Amino acid sequence: MNGNNPLREAFYKTTFQLVGHGKRTIQVLKEPLDETDGSLDSDMYGAGRLIEVFQDRMAHYLGKQSAVFFPSGTMAQQIALRIWCDRKGLKKVAYHPLCHLEIHEEDGLKQLHHIEPILLTDKNRLIQLEDVLNLNEDIACLLLELPQREIGGQLPEYSELEAISAYCVERGIKLHLDGARLFEILPYYGKSADEICKLFDSVYVSFYKGIGGIAGAILAGDEEFAKESKVWKRRHGGDLISLYPYIVSADYYLKQRLPHMGRYYEEAKELAGFYNRCHGVATEPLVPVSNMFHVHFDLPKATLETILIRLYEETGIGLTSYISETSETNCYFEVSIGDQYALTPKLDIEKVFQLLDKRIRDA
Amino acid sequence: MNGNNPLREAFYKTTFQLVGHGKRTIQVLKEPLDETDGSLDSDMYGAGRLIEVFQDRMAHYLGKQSAVFFPSGTMAQQIALRIWCDRKGLKKVAYHPLCHLEIHEEDGLKQLHHIEPILLTDKNRLIQLEDVLNLNEDIACLLLELPQREIGGQLPEYSELEAISAYCVERGIKLHLDGARLFEILPYYGKSADEICKLFDSVYVSFYKGIGGIAGAILAGDEEFAKESKVWKRRHGGDLISLYPYIVSADYYLKQRLPHMGRYYEEAKELAGFYNRCHGVATEPLVPVSNMFHVHFDLPKATLETILIRLYEETGIGLTSYISETSETNCYFEVSIGDQYALTPKLDIEKVFQLLDKRIRDA
Repeated sequence: MNGNNPLREAFYKTTFQLVGHGKRTIQVLKEPLDETDGSLDSDMYGAGRLIEVFQDRMAHYLGKQSAVFFPSGTMAQQIALRIWCDRKGLKKVAYHPLCHLEIHEEDGLKQLHHIEPILLTDKNRLIQLEDVLNLNEDIACLLLELPQREIGGQLPEYSELEAISAYCVERGIKLHLDGARLFEILPYYGKSADEICKLFDSVYVSFYKGIGGIAGAILAGDEEFAKESKVWKRRHGGDLISLYPYIVSADYYLKQRLPHMGRYYEEAKELAGFYNRCHGVATEPLVPVSNMFHVHFDLPKATLETILIRLYEETGIGLTSYISETSETNCYFEVSIGDQYALTPKLDIEKVFQLLDKRIRDA
Repeated sequence: MNGNNPLREAFYKTTFQLVGHGKRTIQVLKEPLDETDGSLDSDMYGAGRLIEVFQDRMAHYLGKQSAVFFPSGTMAQQIALRIWCDRKGLKKVAYHPLCHLEIHEEDGLKQLHHIEPILLTDKNRLIQLEDVLNLNEDIACLLLELPQREIGGQLPEYSELEAISAYCVERGIKLHLDGARLFEILPYYGKSADEICKLFDSVYVSFYKGIGGIAGAILAGDEEFAKESKVWKRRHGGDLISLYPYIVSADYYLKQRLPHMGRYYEEAKELAGFYNRCHGVATEPLVPVSNMFHVHFDLPKATLETILIRLYEETGIGLTSYISETSETNCYFEVSIGDQYALTPKLDIEKVFQLLDKRIRDA
């Protein structure tokens, strides 16, 4: 993992980091387990108090009849789309060109489920009602990702969601929410999770993004949908004898961090402001709508890397552990605000950005 | 999980149990984690020291080029068969009628991979060379389960395995080992794991049977096979950001219990002897060849249940937590020897079986 990665190494040597909840070490599991009674029974192949109580709690939180714990969102979402396709007898869905299923899952949806996705809109913008209206073929399900992660975590207005949802109901199209970062967008919308989820037939949420758990996901919907999803979970090899390491940690960090989503959002806007005041730097979106955003630089990746490593060493503050190349002259990275940002003294943050701006101008 | 299950409840109230490693509680994870340095980095999507070191160690132990950690055997084995089918361009495999893929996986192999299995032999006996010779169509892969769990954990002679393996090599048929209980059969064969595995092209082993870990599996084979299996692992939704809860516990209990497989095997033979001396009771196999066997009773399930509950309450010794109905007049349960058996005083075991025999005769 570490190998020869000087930026990553320099990042993890810093005293303060502006992103994340801290390093993903085994301590992240030890902490919730230390708080858990060792005599509690394991879940057993999806049954047992431990998993059922958590599932019921999440179903209630999301305003759905039933919720099922999955080891991963990849598994949960393929299965959601498969169920809706089977129910309509049509193996066609629509989603954004940068949907997780399209670019991060080795084409599992196509290879395992033989479902054909229609890619809506240009990859650099959000899906709008118009894109759905312009679809000239029938689909079983439309997947919306909120926020749209690969374009910096952008969000449509709630009224746009309502309009898309109403249209889908009218046309017999199931609407699925990729809510990998659902908790993180509630402060922007100023709505509860169930107010968002009621616009959707099925919902997936993740526990290792803003929540900072170990892994794991919930898929929620009506009772029949949940029941079918358990059959597919077994087929996928996800109905493990014990999923409790993920459930116990999801439960623990959910309680700990859900109350902080508003703060992360405010801090994201503040941090984006610092970046946008630097020369040749722009965040996407310009004003974040969740705890995340992307930062784009008019600099080659290698140049920025050199600047950042020196900056980390001089200030003890880490901005990112990686950089992605956009082109030969441009690069970017993703920022997700977690517990770490608030631990960093504000004056030090201001200083680090003054220095960053200067170094970029000198480059 | 508990619900209204008086036999199970009575079993867990006993002081000593003749089966298993003890209750599957969260303590089973707390123990290995307490021994693990919290500052260790998590694995990340299949990469990182923690997962790679364990995989390398297992590859070496199994005598294969490469090994990949999976959340479940269900996932690992479907993928193994898929890879061999794709390599031959033939979606046909053969296995035992009571193969895990046939009866416990909701037809994932057929539903997700569209692979057609040919069921070899009668379900009550082992696959023999003759069954393979008599196959009148070509297959991509033959799966052998050692021991054949659903018929009490029976094993073919090693020479039979050699003959089947040689025939498969000659006919271009890949041979896959369902080694969910591979560790448990080594004492009977008097061979090392790699001596068994060299007869097979691919091997799956599990960490929560005789080893008593939380969950998880290893799939091993040549390098190309392992590489392809990682792509399918992602497609199935098994390439979790963190699998370390399963890896850390697999590693811990492997070290702890692998040395005891010989003892479990001897104890299984002893315990089977106790059962076989009872009226109307017979174990399958008559003499166990691993730590497991089935116990069949010429009694209705309800009658045996009543006898056992009273026996547990009177002696404080638990024999099984469940009974399965074979017919209206017959029933059976599975026995797997673990750490618990050795903790029970031998004289008490003798007494409990004298009492069991008497109660069966009186029934």
